[in-house]
Amino acid sequence: MERKIPVAVLGATGAVGQRFVQLLSDHPFFEVTSLAASERSAGRRYADACRWVIPGDPPASLKEMIVSPLEANLPARLVFSALPADVAREVEPRFAKEGYAVCSNASAYRYEADVPLVIPEVNGDHLALIAKQRETRGWRGFIVTNPNCSTTGIVMALKPLHEAFSLSKVFAFTMQGASGAGYPGVPSLDILDNVIPYIPGEEEKIARETRLLLGGVEEGEQRQAKISISAHANRVPVIDGHTIALSLGFERPPTPEQAIEVLRSFRGSPDVHDLPSAPNMPIVVRAEEDRPQPRRDRDTERGMAVSVGRVRECPILDLRLLVVVHNTIRGAAGGSLLNGELLVKRGLVK
Amino acid sequence: MERKIPVAVLGATGAVGQRFVQLLSDHPFFEVTSLAASERSAGRRYADACRWVIPGDPPASLKEMIVSPLEANLPARLVFSALPADVAREVEPRFAKEGYAVCSNASAYRYEADVPLVIPEVNGDHLALIAKQRETRGWRGFIVTNPNCSTTGIVMALKPLHEAFSLSKVFAFTMQGASGAGYPGVPSLDILDNVIPYIPGEEEKIARETRLLLGGVEEGEQRQAKISISAHANRVPVIDGHTIALSLGFERPPTPEQAIEVLRSFRGSPDVHDLPSAPNMPIVVRAEEDRPQPRRDRDTERGMAVSVGRVRECPILDLRLLVVVHNTIRGAAGGSLLNGELLVKRGLVK
Amino acid sequence: MERKIPVAVLGATGAVGQRFVQLLSDHPFFEVTSLAASERSAGRRYADACRWVIPGDPPASLKEMIVSPLEANLPARLVFSALPADVAREVEPRFAKEGYAVCSNASAYRYEADVPLVIPEVNGDHLALIAKQRETRGWRGFIVTNPNCSTTGIVMALKPLHEAFSLSKVFAFTMQGASGAGYPGVPSLDILDNVIPYIPGEEEKIARETRLLLGGVEEGEQRQAKISISAHANRVPVIDGHTIALSLGFERPPTPEQAIEVLRSFRGSPDVHDLPSAPNMPIVVRAEEDRPQPRRDRDTERGMAVSVGRVRECPILDLRLLVVVHNTIRGAAGGSLLNGELLVKRGLVK
Amino acid sequence: MERKIPVAVLGATGAVGQRFVQLLSDHPFFEVTSLAASERSAGRRYADACRWVIPGDPPASLKEMIVSPLEANLPARLVFSALPADVAREVEPRFAKEGYAVCSNASAYRYEADVPLVIPEVNGDHLALIAKQRETRGWRGFIVTNPNCSTTGIVMALKPLHEAFSLSKVFAFTMQGASGAGYPGVPSLDILDNVIPYIPGEEEKIARETRLLLGGVEEGEQRQAKISISAHANRVPVIDGHTIALSLGFERPPTPEQAIEVLRSFRGSPDVHDLPSAPNMPIVVRAEEDRPQPRRDRDTERGMAVSVGRVRECPILDLRLLVVVHNTIRGAAGGSLLNGELLVKRGLVK
Repeated sequence: MERKIPVAVLGATGAVGQRFVQLLSDHPFFEVTSLAASERSAGRRYADACRWVIPGDPPASLKEMIVSPLEANLPARLVFSALPADVAREVEPRFAKEGYAVCSNASAYRYEADVPLVIPEVNGDHLALIAKQRETRGWRGFIVTNPNCSTTGIVMALKPLHEAFSLSKVFAFTMQGASGAGYPGVPSLDILDNVIPYIPGEEEKIARETRLLLGGVEEGEQRQAKISISAHANRVPVIDGHTIALSLGFERPPTPEQAIEVLRSFRGSPDVHDLPSAPNMPIVVRAEEDRPQPRRDRDTERGMAVSVGRVRECPILDLRLLVVVHNTIRGAAGGSLLNGELLVKRGLVK
Repeated sequence: MERKIPVAVLGATGAVGQRFVQLLSDHPFFEVTSLAASERSAGRRYADACRWVIPGDPPASLKEMIVSPLEANLPARLVFSALPADVAREVEPRFAKEGYAVCSNASAYRYEADVPLVIPEVNGDHLALIAKQRETRGWRGFIVTNPNCSTTGIVMALKPLHEAFSLSKVFAFTMQGASGAGYPGVPSLDILDNVIPYIPGEEEKIARETRLLLGGVEEGEQRQAKISISAHANRVPVIDGHTIALSLGFERPPTPEQAIEVLRSFRGSPDVHDLPSAPNMPIVVRAEEDRPQPRRDRDTERGMAVSVGRVRECPILDLRLLVVVHNTIRGAAGGSLLNGELLVKRGLVK
Repeated sequence: MERKIPVAVLGATGAVGQRFVQLLSDHPFFEVTSLAASERSAGRRYADACRWVIPGDPPASLKEMIVSPLEANLPARLVFSALPADVAREVEPRFAKEGYAVCSNASAYRYEADVPLVIPEVNGDHLALIAKQRETRGWRGFIVTNPNCSTTGIVMALKPLHEAFSLSKVFAFTMQGASGAGYPGVPSLDILDNVIPYIPGEEEKIARETRLLLGGVEEGEQRQAKISISAHANRVPVIDGHTIALSLGFERPPTPEQAIEVLRSFRGSPDVHDLPSAPNMPIVVRAEEDRPQPRRDRDTERGMAVSVGRVRECPILDLRLLVVVHNTIRGAAGGSLLNGELLVKRGLVK
Repeated sequence: MERKIPVAVLGATGAVGQRFVQLLSDHPFFEVTSLAASERSAGRRYADACRWVIPGDPPASLKEMIVSPLEANLPARLVFSALPADVAREVEPRFAKEGYAVCSNASAYRYEADVPLVIPEVNGDHLALIAKQRETRGWRGFIVTNPNCSTTGIVMALKPLHEAFSLSKVFAFTMQGASGAGYPGVPSLDILDNVIPYIPGEEEKIARETRLLLGGVEEGEQRQAKISISAHANRVPVIDGHTIALSLGFERPPTPEQAIEVLRSFRGSPDVHDLPSAPNMPIVVRAEEDRPQPRRDRDTERGMAVSVGRVRECPILDLRLLVVVHNTIRGAAGGSLLNGELLVKRGLVK
């Protein structure tokens, strides 16, 4: 690559938008040329429009940038979208139509049969849907989505197990950090010294997206894997990091040792390894009896690896294990960014 | 009852011991005549020996009491034991042998075939084991135990469902408050902004105790119910209150509405209703989509009721639901105290 | 009192409004006949309009009440106002004009020279301003206010010291609970594992209100006490309870022992003692070296007493000490309710 | 430097010891050749002996190292001590006697007239005491100490102000993170939803150490600066980072703007700038009205800078301002490491 690819961030002032901005700072492939947001923010300096809620400060080079409105005329070829679902539903197709590649963290188009829902190490082949998407919709550009934050952690851990032993049943119990709800998000009076045992739509998303990600693409459409999934989603007083306890049933049940071996060996598609944001090890298996923990493990490999531990037998199904994923990095902005890098690697964005 | 029954608290200076002291203050059946603890505390004023960690202050009437050593010569007929398991193993039989009724919150004797493990609303009939226990062991007194804190919440919710629909499988995922580990217990550096996905021995206790409590007594021994149980135990940054997500399978699967009806109607054995510490409703079913929550529901009925909510279908088994129990009241000192009250009601302590 | 006085709560659905509703349940003087709130809530069942954020549930008797709009035609003689300041500025005078006694927790009229700012134990005599207020403004009713939450704690502790030793300088450093910002209030992403060292307007309020409360009334107007006050206001990850560290300078400096003696002896005006919400002891002095603490001491005397501790010398001024006050009870709804009770006692509401 | 200087960490398994180990990983001056700890840990693999409580994992290169006992025969020229004060009192002189340079984070020798208490940017000239120390005590090596964690933050902010405007009075109110108490340290039951308004010895340390650090060295002894200091020390539910509110009085009072200018210009002794652990800016002045905050600012310049904000007038003294310091980095291991680097730079360790 001789010159960096100009990119924009849509929804740049929100919590996930800020992570995009942070991760895109000094990126080897991409250069941020626009920060776009709703009317309330457009026209203001980024540093003024944005209440920075992640540690540190906005990159010095972007503090002075004037926030653009959400119009499909930005000087960029790829846009990363951190928009809320309802806004994304309106705005993202306008960009795709005008020829932009849209890497969207929003749920708005995740379930369309011709829109790839992708984790590069898991199902990069789903990008094949892009051709059909453009044809059907008559778009010059396209939309690629990444899954919901907790699903990302779950599926990265399940992928190698599913390939090796064929998953049939999944119980997923989540303990999700507050940042998953954005900013201002969860009121402190709801979460201090408390658990909120309900996250709207989350249990359905986990079931649906897991089946899509572990399923295949046939005749230009995504097919859901035949896996039964029961999810219980909870919010806990943790800032970043989702912890998920899993009980798993398989067609060919492995021993815990076999499962650990397969998890340890997982690398994902070979063309993902050398992407700038790819972790060296997508899955880090911990041996301690009390790990992974969100505060201590969320930042593993700059927040891009999932940590797995307590792999043991399940008295009812076959295996129990734990997963920790950094929800706003791997499970949101970082996951979407890795999708963007894969698009470049595969020549879908130039 | 003309005169109150003199009782002692063993392990009175610890976190659960303090709850006993608090709950026994102005009790209609019992009068605290001794506070006993390890050598380190014996001989000191209770207010000095004890770092009071629950809200408020020790009862004024007990502040000046001199702490006794753990010797079986206390002026009491019933002793409530909040001793650690290893100490309980030595000390409790000495008291039972000398004729004391011992209501123990410790796990030391919970799994002996002739020692009743009792929740009054659930299996008060297990007290029948006492006769065998005395005979076999040659004790003038006896030991009665109550289950572990998270098991108490789980079993109270499961009892009416098991009776009506015959349970076969239980997935239990716990999010437990810090007070379950006693004082000093969980270091703040381990739990602030974090989850500890491991509690030593807890998953085994939940499985074993649930089967005992829902099982019967045959030929003077406890029989485990035939239920498969898979538990995942986690510690979360909550002070008091254990939240448990359950997925349940039944022989005769109910609809959520049928389950709610059965939960709402549950009252437990009739001779429990009018005990001083018994809740009006052992199970309170919440209709809100995001309840029960530990901080908002743990104190329901002075911490003696369990709160249940989110009763809904399970995509794999039959039902999903949530339980909140106050771990140091219903799940520890309050549960043991209710056992003591039941012993009085049934004439086993006079 | 033969019949209870009918009262309304303005802003009944907010966090402070809920405390009013809770504290007015089964009140010996008052009966809630109306719950009023903004247009968004008016016309709905109270239980539906209100997201109940304090422990437990709304009183059963009020769940079905239909929320009224904020119009001055409610069937009540006294209204308790938990309105936001900007709404209070519009609404409260309309009620006062129509003959209602308004006990307001809002800051809108706290600084008017003819509006009493009152803590019953401290300056009940300021109610004398009511006559002037009615006359000047031509109102049939009137407004009485209570101070900001942290000021309430500070002034209750300072009052007996000022009377005995004549205060000249006050450094007040606050660590305030999240509930002081209402609901939704402080986002969890701002306060988990964090301190927010700024609360808009708080430092000015503390200085101004402390001088008014410790000042006198002359010629029908409030006069500020001549005390220099420097405040530092901080928000900490605590739910309820404000902790305030004070360094104090006096005209006649006491020893710590003298100060403790004066604090312990404080009772406030005699006609306050037997009000239903009055604490037995307005100030509880703790002897432990690490008390008072917000979680352990905020509920002292049902949240109506302030707890004081660590009374010791100050290397620069004369005394250092600590205060804990329950901010939504004594520092808000409970303080306002006590003002209402005093109005009844003094015949200003009948 | 051709070869790295061999160093040891004393007390390597504790919370501060772990920070030393982390910060010494890949250090340009130093190579860790020994990890020493108490008898309980000696002889075990470091990874086994140490419960790692900071994020991530121990450096791979040190996991297998066998922990040494605390004997003064380690293959090192410089030792960093994270020992508890009582152990340090015994152990550190043995090392100094045997010729080791001891950089101690312990308080044991901080107040000896011939032991330098040093923050490199503030009073590197106090190292001149080393000559006297060796001579008087007959040691071949020596001890250099760094101040207590909260004092470090306070003094770094005060140094330029004192130099420019001559400090006379300091009120310091601290809100200290839990990691300041080490591990296991503060029980979660003491700090969740709570403030502990007392830290043993802390208020005295702040006063004494501040006067030493801002004082001079005369006739081979430290002289305390003539500043009156009143401290209030509190523990809050924050993991890392101490937040300190200051009210300051000066001989020549500056305006807030003058104070900000002086704080912004501060660089410390020139020979400190290029030390490996030195921050580019020792003091970072924030312009936002609600910063610095511990979670968002503690990691500024890898935790080695202090953040200052809210510089404004004080109604009683001259200035109010806020400081945030990372207590286990700048305020402990990082501060001690910087002392070690300065010793190398000045040729006191070769």
